[in-house]
Amino acid sequence: MRVAVVGATGLVGRTMLRVLEEKIAPNTPIDVIPIATRRSTGKSVFFFGRKYTVRAIDEGIPAVDFALFSAGSEASLTYAPAFVSKGATVIDNSSAFRMDPKVPLVVPHVNPEDIRDHQGIIANPNCSTIQMVIFLKPLLDAFGIEAVDVVTFQAVSGAGYKGLFALEAEEDGGFYDHTPFAKRIHRNVIPQIGGFKEGYSTEEWKMINETQKILHTKLRVNPTAVRVPVKVGHSEAVHILLGSTPPIEDVYRVLEKAPAVVLLKDDYVTPMDVEGRDEVFVGRLRFHPDNPRLLSAWVVADNLRRGAATNAVEILQLLMEE
Amino acid sequence: MRVAVVGATGLVGRTMLRVLEEKIAPNTPIDVIPIATRRSTGKSVFFFGRKYTVRAIDEGIPAVDFALFSAGSEASLTYAPAFVSKGATVIDNSSAFRMDPKVPLVVPHVNPEDIRDHQGIIANPNCSTIQMVIFLKPLLDAFGIEAVDVVTFQAVSGAGYKGLFALEAEEDGGFYDHTPFAKRIHRNVIPQIGGFKEGYSTEEWKMINETQKILHTKLRVNPTAVRVPVKVGHSEAVHILLGSTPPIEDVYRVLEKAPAVVLLKDDYVTPMDVEGRDEVFVGRLRFHPDNPRLLSAWVVADNLRRGAATNAVEILQLLMEE
Repeated sequence: MRVAVVGATGLVGRTMLRVLEEKIAPNTPIDVIPIATRRSTGKSVFFFGRKYTVRAIDEGIPAVDFALFSAGSEASLTYAPAFVSKGATVIDNSSAFRMDPKVPLVVPHVNPEDIRDHQGIIANPNCSTIQMVIFLKPLLDAFGIEAVDVVTFQAVSGAGYKGLFALEAEEDGGFYDHTPFAKRIHRNVIPQIGGFKEGYSTEEWKMINETQKILHTKLRVNPTAVRVPVKVGHSEAVHILLGSTPPIEDVYRVLEKAPAVVLLKDDYVTPMDVEGRDEVFVGRLRFHPDNPRLLSAWVVADNLRRGAATNAVEILQLLMEE
Repeated sequence: MRVAVVGATGLVGRTMLRVLEEKIAPNTPIDVIPIATRRSTGKSVFFFGRKYTVRAIDEGIPAVDFALFSAGSEASLTYAPAFVSKGATVIDNSSAFRMDPKVPLVVPHVNPEDIRDHQGIIANPNCSTIQMVIFLKPLLDAFGIEAVDVVTFQAVSGAGYKGLFALEAEEDGGFYDHTPFAKRIHRNVIPQIGGFKEGYSTEEWKMINETQKILHTKLRVNPTAVRVPVKVGHSEAVHILLGSTPPIEDVYRVLEKAPAVVLLKDDYVTPMDVEGRDEVFVGRLRFHPDNPRLLSAWVVADNLRRGAATNAVEILQLLMEE
């Protein structure tokens, strides 16, 4: 099986290689083709004990079975169709095709059936959206949901290596010239991820729109997305108005059976606790004292794995099963 | 005018002295009596150019006009009544008396009239509550409010010097033995401030209950309170279901006239920007695209000044005017 990873030297690209190594390579030999922009050629990456030299994206499109893209929207728009016309199925982690009605937007634990209608490209959702819908889906099915208020605490690695470098430089008393953040992030929090349109940031619009597409409902999500000085791990305070009033034990029962969910009930984890894990950790579950439909939770996941690479590789596994 | 500051060597106590210097001492000479627990006696503090030796709380209760307390609930419960019986009016920053029906809980910019019925003790509200109600009150009066969802990003200084020491020690690769936090706070966020009761933390219960007492309504507040690695400045993502559907310009008009509010409209500040300021900064004001009653905002204030010392001194000013 030939698999190209486009953006192989980025944070998510490297994590994709690691997750492929762990989950696919032991059973299905993979011939991996790491690809990046001109800037990164000459670099090499290790995969399953072998060293691979990174190839430049403009050197020509190789024929592969699957291509995992995580090199930004522009690279996806330019090169993904070329991979498809050479026979590949593309799993794209950028936002380029996510809201395209012809492209399925898939979280295998939530809407695996949507993958069937693909025309060569399957979109991997936004990191904050993936961990939220994995938590929401079983509740939606069991109890109905009328509205969701969500506030995110997003790690700097969500902005790639530049985000990590910015935090580290500032911690050392310096400043990183290519910081992706609008303000200093060390000892600070910044309520802006992407640009603003009608008052909501790009990240917030993704959570509003992608959630509806994945869950096939007009569910109203009201997000505030905030960058925090954490390296890896997105946390979300999720406040849900359910469509019914189940006892908390029924909520526990549903979430205990939910795929990819670790239920912590009253307890909680912090982002520092979940680095390297693939599950979505759901804690601090509680109903409001004055409203038995208002359920709140603290939801944490590794943004590079669960929020990006692991979901992409699970899409690949779904495609392999077909 | 004789003013005792009990807890004068703590972070809020020192800030109280600074705010008294700035706002009262230039017009009304103050004879200040700094008081602390036995642990801090021998220390001294400066006030309006003079050095004062800190007196131990158990050395006997001095007769003063006003006593500002910020030495924890136990100290307030033990000593505040003694100050009152010696003729003082006590302004208490602890949570000891806040929900006592005989004690007014006052934000001078919100419910100054409640101060009239005091019996010697006036309670200063919780920091997160103060900045939120200063923002909510003008909206409640103008448009009505049905429900509030709020998620806080609270600075380590809210836990006093111990909070600052914990963050600094961890930044240096170490660990502070007396950390007030349940987990490491450097490069992390912790959804716990105080202990838990029925799923909500102490801090969250304060926001639920104190808001209702200050605003004299049964308004349903649903909070998630989170500690973040920021030194000074609490931020709040506030999502409000209004009772009506005003155009955003009307919301601007109301907040432009609101006392102690700096209106930023589409723009925002971060906690790092507001250290040393007394105002509440309201930014990222927006209505949800699918619900014209759902108003969201990003609300930031200096927790030591606006959230504690400045409000306490404004209560003192109100009392002086009487």
